[in-house]
Amino acid sequence: MDADYIISMRRYFHKNPELSFHEYKTADRIEEELKGMGLKPERITETGIICDINGSSKGNTVALRADIDALPVNENSGDEFASKNNGVMHACGHDAHTAMLLGIAKYLSGHKSFKGKIRLIFQPAEETPPGGAIEMIENGALDDVDYIIGQHLLSTLKAGTVGINYEYGAAMADQFSIKISGPGGHASRPDESSDTIYVASLFIVSAQSIISRMVDQTKPSVLTFGTLNGGDRFNIIASTVEITGTVRAYNRELREKIRDSLKGMLSHICSIYGSEYEFEYVEGYPALLNDRNVAKVINKIAIDVAGSENVVYPDPSMGGEDFSRYLEKVPGAFYRLGVGNKEKGIDAPPHSSKYRIDESALTTGASVMLLSAMYLLEHGTKI
Amino acid sequence: MDADYIISMRRYFHKNPELSFHEYKTADRIEEELKGMGLKPERITETGIICDINGSSKGNTVALRADIDALPVNENSGDEFASKNNGVMHACGHDAHTAMLLGIAKYLSGHKSFKGKIRLIFQPAEETPPGGAIEMIENGALDDVDYIIGQHLLSTLKAGTVGINYEYGAAMADQFSIKISGPGGHASRPDESSDTIYVASLFIVSAQSIISRMVDQTKPSVLTFGTLNGGDRFNIIASTVEITGTVRAYNRELREKIRDSLKGMLSHICSIYGSEYEFEYVEGYPALLNDRNVAKVINKIAIDVAGSENVVYPDPSMGGEDFSRYLEKVPGAFYRLGVGNKEKGIDAPPHSSKYRIDESALTTGASVMLLSAMYLLEHGTKI
Amino acid sequence: MDADYIISMRRYFHKNPELSFHEYKTADRIEEELKGMGLKPERITETGIICDINGSSKGNTVALRADIDALPVNENSGDEFASKNNGVMHACGHDAHTAMLLGIAKYLSGHKSFKGKIRLIFQPAEETPPGGAIEMIENGALDDVDYIIGQHLLSTLKAGTVGINYEYGAAMADQFSIKISGPGGHASRPDESSDTIYVASLFIVSAQSIISRMVDQTKPSVLTFGTLNGGDRFNIIASTVEITGTVRAYNRELREKIRDSLKGMLSHICSIYGSEYEFEYVEGYPALLNDRNVAKVINKIAIDVAGSENVVYPDPSMGGEDFSRYLEKVPGAFYRLGVGNKEKGIDAPPHSSKYRIDESALTTGASVMLLSAMYLLEHGTKI
Amino acid sequence: MDADYIISMRRYFHKNPELSFHEYKTADRIEEELKGMGLKPERITETGIICDINGSSKGNTVALRADIDALPVNENSGDEFASKNNGVMHACGHDAHTAMLLGIAKYLSGHKSFKGKIRLIFQPAEETPPGGAIEMIENGALDDVDYIIGQHLLSTLKAGTVGINYEYGAAMADQFSIKISGPGGHASRPDESSDTIYVASLFIVSAQSIISRMVDQTKPSVLTFGTLNGGDRFNIIASTVEITGTVRAYNRELREKIRDSLKGMLSHICSIYGSEYEFEYVEGYPALLNDRNVAKVINKIAIDVAGSENVVYPDPSMGGEDFSRYLEKVPGAFYRLGVGNKEKGIDAPPHSSKYRIDESALTTGASVMLLSAMYLLEHGTKI
Repeated sequence: MDADYIISMRRYFHKNPELSFHEYKTADRIEEELKGMGLKPERITETGIICDINGSSKGNTVALRADIDALPVNENSGDEFASKNNGVMHACGHDAHTAMLLGIAKYLSGHKSFKGKIRLIFQPAEETPPGGAIEMIENGALDDVDYIIGQHLLSTLKAGTVGINYEYGAAMADQFSIKISGPGGHASRPDESSDTIYVASLFIVSAQSIISRMVDQTKPSVLTFGTLNGGDRFNIIASTVEITGTVRAYNRELREKIRDSLKGMLSHICSIYGSEYEFEYVEGYPALLNDRNVAKVINKIAIDVAGSENVVYPDPSMGGEDFSRYLEKVPGAFYRLGVGNKEKGIDAPPHSSKYRIDESALTTGASVMLLSAMYLLEHGTKI
Repeated sequence: MDADYIISMRRYFHKNPELSFHEYKTADRIEEELKGMGLKPERITETGIICDINGSSKGNTVALRADIDALPVNENSGDEFASKNNGVMHACGHDAHTAMLLGIAKYLSGHKSFKGKIRLIFQPAEETPPGGAIEMIENGALDDVDYIIGQHLLSTLKAGTVGINYEYGAAMADQFSIKISGPGGHASRPDESSDTIYVASLFIVSAQSIISRMVDQTKPSVLTFGTLNGGDRFNIIASTVEITGTVRAYNRELREKIRDSLKGMLSHICSIYGSEYEFEYVEGYPALLNDRNVAKVINKIAIDVAGSENVVYPDPSMGGEDFSRYLEKVPGAFYRLGVGNKEKGIDAPPHSSKYRIDESALTTGASVMLLSAMYLLEHGTKI
Repeated sequence: MDADYIISMRRYFHKNPELSFHEYKTADRIEEELKGMGLKPERITETGIICDINGSSKGNTVALRADIDALPVNENSGDEFASKNNGVMHACGHDAHTAMLLGIAKYLSGHKSFKGKIRLIFQPAEETPPGGAIEMIENGALDDVDYIIGQHLLSTLKAGTVGINYEYGAAMADQFSIKISGPGGHASRPDESSDTIYVASLFIVSAQSIISRMVDQTKPSVLTFGTLNGGDRFNIIASTVEITGTVRAYNRELREKIRDSLKGMLSHICSIYGSEYEFEYVEGYPALLNDRNVAKVINKIAIDVAGSENVVYPDPSMGGEDFSRYLEKVPGAFYRLGVGNKEKGIDAPPHSSKYRIDESALTTGASVMLLSAMYLLEHGTKI
Repeated sequence: MDADYIISMRRYFHKNPELSFHEYKTADRIEEELKGMGLKPERITETGIICDINGSSKGNTVALRADIDALPVNENSGDEFASKNNGVMHACGHDAHTAMLLGIAKYLSGHKSFKGKIRLIFQPAEETPPGGAIEMIENGALDDVDYIIGQHLLSTLKAGTVGINYEYGAAMADQFSIKISGPGGHASRPDESSDTIYVASLFIVSAQSIISRMVDQTKPSVLTFGTLNGGDRFNIIASTVEITGTVRAYNRELREKIRDSLKGMLSHICSIYGSEYEFEYVEGYPALLNDRNVAKVINKIAIDVAGSENVVYPDPSMGGEDFSRYLEKVPGAFYRLGVGNKEKGIDAPPHSSKYRIDESALTTGASVMLLSAMYLLEHGTKI
């Protein structure tokens, strides 16, 4: 596994991030790299690529997936290869996912004495629902695929550690938009207006009780308000406030309880103050449910590669991940690769403007992915 | 008093609103009108004009003031002469104040048989602290002035009504800006971030208690949060929220109590959640305190012009008004001119995008202003 | 004026406080004292007394009123004559009001060379709506009365100071009771219950916005929640919370806005969480509106007695006072008597368990009351 | 198994509930019953009893535990055998736990042909930390015990269903007490007081964010405020509010985060308003962690007794249970017995005043407990 190549590619993508569904230069570079290795990438969506590598004999097909898009975050990491695209940043590690998959490609281009086929999937737009996986699947990414593997960096795990989930690995991740409106007016006469900034604030404060009081406390759920914008001027009572946010849960019943509670609460609070509202709720990625048997294979390989002391079983993340869409079609599993390093000050959470990773972990990630695929090709899920 | 002229000028200014300190075309048109009447306007600041009209004999000087700027509001009034400048609107009636003063100018240009001097003051930027009055005064607007009169439309008063305050007429109107910041992060891991949107919401909800619990309930005070903006994306915990707002009160002690309470509350709430903050507080216009004797003259004239059933004594407004700066230098008074008309559906509050006025009141306003000035020139404040 | 007598009586009453409508021993002692002076008190309600003192010739009748009841407060003043009735305390100065009126009685019993009649009114139950004034009036306390005077201690005024209001002197003071109920349950399953303690807390926090956002900010109003009780055990979700409180305002429209907003807010917030509620609102004392001419007489006398530097014109109190019921029937006025003394550490607010007074002020209070009555008998309100 | 006996005993205890540590008559009756069966109960604490039943040959000892105390709840179930002790109720099913253990005793008193020993443990005060288990253990309840089994009714499970947890079965259940105090005062002058009722309300509302924002959202945790009491009178600002509540979690780190966040939040909010506070936090029962092997035995027996369709694996409860103290010393397991019956309207949650159970389930509960003990005596945990 060519560590230098993986790191140099990761830094290239890090410096040149592109937003979801706009990964044009990223896709071009991936194709260029793969072609340079003598492989035959196929552009199956506008910015989505698959690349099949046939072994020396017939057999099963194992797909390996990387996501390639970046986030609308203003990088403030201090890295010398920081984003040169203002307001866009690989703050979730997809640069590394892509680089590791290219590392695997490079290795395989010179080692084809295996049975069956490896399919590389470079998927756009994991960050933006409905996500890039749908279109990739519609355009054949999973055709003839027997197993699929994906991975994601995790900065709360020590670099080089591998995290396995046998069941759920990521949550349903829904999105909502709210608009609160009412008659604005002069700042000195609130009684003649409906103060939508106050109404929005009370709603957001009250909504904490949905998580703390209104749903089953034994089941994980998250409600986050990500943006809040309202008002025109310091001395005018705002006639409009717009809010967006996300709901996370593992089961459909809980999601629906949160959604309905949000809407009911919004409606009642607006009524108190004479505001009106619009409420839009978009269901996001399904919960990510690993195949227990494929997860066991990854667990075995991870112990071989990283040592059993470096394989952990973290609680499932409340993050959403559209790798779940592949798992609805094909058995597979998704694991975490630790990239944190507190000694080096590498511990900012993902999506933060200070997000950094310990790149020394990337060969571990690439090895676990590659060797797990090889095992599945040779033995299936029999251990 | 030429009602048609006043209304046509008001509509012209309404259609061509300009923001505070940018009233270039407005000032040009005012000068043009005054020159067309044979008067000699003088541009004493970039967009501020005074114009002296001498009577037939020596005497006192009475200044009459109109403010000429508009607001950053998107007009939605439905009027055919609605603003053609997108996002800018005369939503506070300064178009009418200006038009009435031009109407007075037009009348006086043909009736100069009075004792003393009338000074017209067309002042920019009443809406934006520190306001245009400071610079006007610095450039001589009050030199040799004995009395000063100002007026303001009031849509909660029936058209043609005149509202008099013998003491306070408007409040101190301060402005504050707050920035709350903290480590952002992934929406699904609030425990690893500081959710500045939640912190801002809790702060705004808690701050209601400053008015309801922490200050003397017998003295008027207002706290309004006018803008609130934070967050980049629905699924990223916002690392920054910015808030602006205004504080209103009549006395300095109360203002300081509110300011200090705001800051203390902000500091404690940010500490709970690990956020940081910046707090900037700018003292705005002084409270507007009328000269009781000049107010009595206006009351007498208003009864003559509008009938005693149409002269009212409203509670002082919590609005700010930089006419207060003139009153700190020279005895004078500021009155309200009713322009509401519920039967015609004219009742939107000022600063609202639906603000409209009943123009039939404008001759009343111009007459009260002109005749009060004439009385002061002839009799002083003796009644 | 016998200062020692007044102080000793005040201390007696202070030590022996009785709750509203239960002032049995207090009334007995008042009668006993009056009879001891040779006067003829008349018990006109269960614990209410009037006592007429006729002057040497016919004339008008001036009534002087003291309230005699105490509060359910646990005294913690440290005074040696502190309450011996556990949980009951003269924490609002009615002991002193009563003692001053007895001091006046004592003086008058030896000085009857005046024209007309003085009627002393010892009224029960000022602290507990509907208050004792109603029954006193129904039983003739105001029959033939031409003017009435009342006074109240004020610990925020320096001892010996007199505070005059020409218009409003006290507010409407209403009372409300709320019961929130819902299915209780095990502390660990809030989703299966309705947490009435949380619902009550959110309601009380939200209700601050009634004062800060929903009513006219230029008019005084107060909303206080005085008691809050709910829950049976730390690990059971409370099925019931009971709340009481008070609303204060000077005008009926504002009171009704607050009452209706409270109820609407309560209803909506309970609906969000599946709680039910009961809401009871009892209108309390009317606002106390002084007769301007009688107030001028008291002002004149107060200046004579205390010196003009010791007569002040405080903002009207938001406290309620059923002296307002007399003023609805008969012209009169109500003034404040300063009893604070910061140097001596006497500055606890009324209704506090640490309430104390500077007794040196009591002769001033008794003198102003007596001499104002004498002036009214002799000159009416002519000054 | 004598169903009639179990039900009649359950109804007897239901009608005669006694609070934690005061189960005097309950203990007397248990002893009386056991003696009537020819057994030899031993009172090892004031109201705690053990009773050994020796089989026909030497072997292991299996302990079976029932808790016997009731709750301070006012029964409103409508049952004819409802509590006759006002304000005390078996609202958590301990009456049935006790009755089932007596049913087992009755059976065993006539069937002693088993190997080893069964120890019945009738434990007081499960509901009130530190709980009765500590003293029972100190006085020898676990001496020579090899395995222990406990059970608890669950009204959300259908009657006759058995619920098994292989790991955690109940949470740490801590208790806290808070006192907020500040200068009280007259309801109309909040600015001169510190309104502890408002402060408490804001604290409770804000504290929801501890669960929703400040702790790991993937791990179960609960924060409930169970009681809230403050204030003396509707028109006096409360000088004191007292709050109690409970914190639930499975791991120590989370508990400590919640405890520290509560205290920090309380401190900051009190500082804002000039209140003071006391905060007492008592760690409650440890989390209940079953022995996986004993749980497997119970699972096997439950399938035999109830049918595999009636054995379920619920999420662990956030309730606390001091059976955990026995499990810290001896391998064992705790299971749930469904007693709900929606068709019959039996679905009120435990600790509710309307709590009822479907008694038909009790023989299932007693049988599972008895047969699991027999299996452990004969085979240990080998399956």
